[in-house]
Amino acid sequence: MMGLFLEDVDEGLAVDLGSYHFTRDSIIAFARKYDPQPFHLSEEGGSRGPFGGLSASGWHTAAGWMKCYVKANDAARAKLEAAGNVLPELGPGPGFTNLKWLKPVYPGDTLRYSCRVTGKRDLASKPKWGIVFSMNEGINQKGELVYSFEGKVLTARLPSP
Amino acid sequence: MMGLFLEDVDEGLAVDLGSYHFTRDSIIAFARKYDPQPFHLSEEGGSRGPFGGLSASGWHTAAGWMKCYVKANDAARAKLEAAGNVLPELGPGPGFTNLKWLKPVYPGDTLRYSCRVTGKRDLASKPKWGIVFSMNEGINQKGELVYSFEGKVLTARLPSP
Repeated sequence: MMGLFLEDVDEGLAVDLGSYHFTRDSIIAFARKYDPQPFHLSEEGGSRGPFGGLSASGWHTAAGWMKCYVKANDAARAKLEAAGNVLPELGPGPGFTNLKWLKPVYPGDTLRYSCRVTGKRDLASKPKWGIVFSMNEGINQKGELVYSFEGKVLTARLPSP
Repeated sequence: MMGLFLEDVDEGLAVDLGSYHFTRDSIIAFARKYDPQPFHLSEEGGSRGPFGGLSASGWHTAAGWMKCYVKANDAARAKLEAAGNVLPELGPGPGFTNLKWLKPVYPGDTLRYSCRVTGKRDLASKPKWGIVFSMNEGINQKGELVYSFEGKVLTARLPSP
């Protein structure tokens, strides 16, 4: 996670992941491919739907978080690497919980995403890895919390000497 | 849900959502846009990554479920409508929990998705709606469970006469 070994990830570590802008075109393009419900496809469909207008697929909101997470992660790794650090292998995320779409995301909205470490634990089955738990959020340009989930990601331990 | 009012959705109702095929091109296209980690972008990156080869973003696996869900839902609604039924308004999903990516998804894999109702409850805050809970799965062509999550979706009650 962020180029850090498990030993260097502490509860409370908070990372601003940057922002993702939802254009009308990107909302419709995502919906056509993966979530073609009328209120994600056009203003007309949106006006008849539950959100009073065209709005982004919740999975698009989720994918925007991932995009920002990877970018922030790459930047953090590049910086550590440039300073001569040996970095941990990238670990996958086995899943997450309590994902909430709290408010609609409309064309022109920009979400700022963040990731805050809430805990970590060892993995009995994988002695070289631990799990880092995080609370992740997306906040729109009005400061409203529109998206959150509790994530977990495998994170490599410092190699034993 | 599936064109049914809350009163007609019963625990145990199971829907085959159909299948989604993951091509090399679609895996890389999704990753470029939303999850550009090396093991989702090329065979080379995949061979150095945690899954031993190019594999789909977990968010792509999730989006594939959504695509199938919308298609199955549309088909169910069309059938009920053709039979002269009045259908409920579409309700959004406020979120879900316990999402698990259990196995990697590789180019050429086909996931068959399903949705099984596990319960429902009234909504004190929204008397015209209830929540339907479901267990959702994705199974690959070898019969392996690779993806699951517990969903919830707002579902309209029968209008009072």
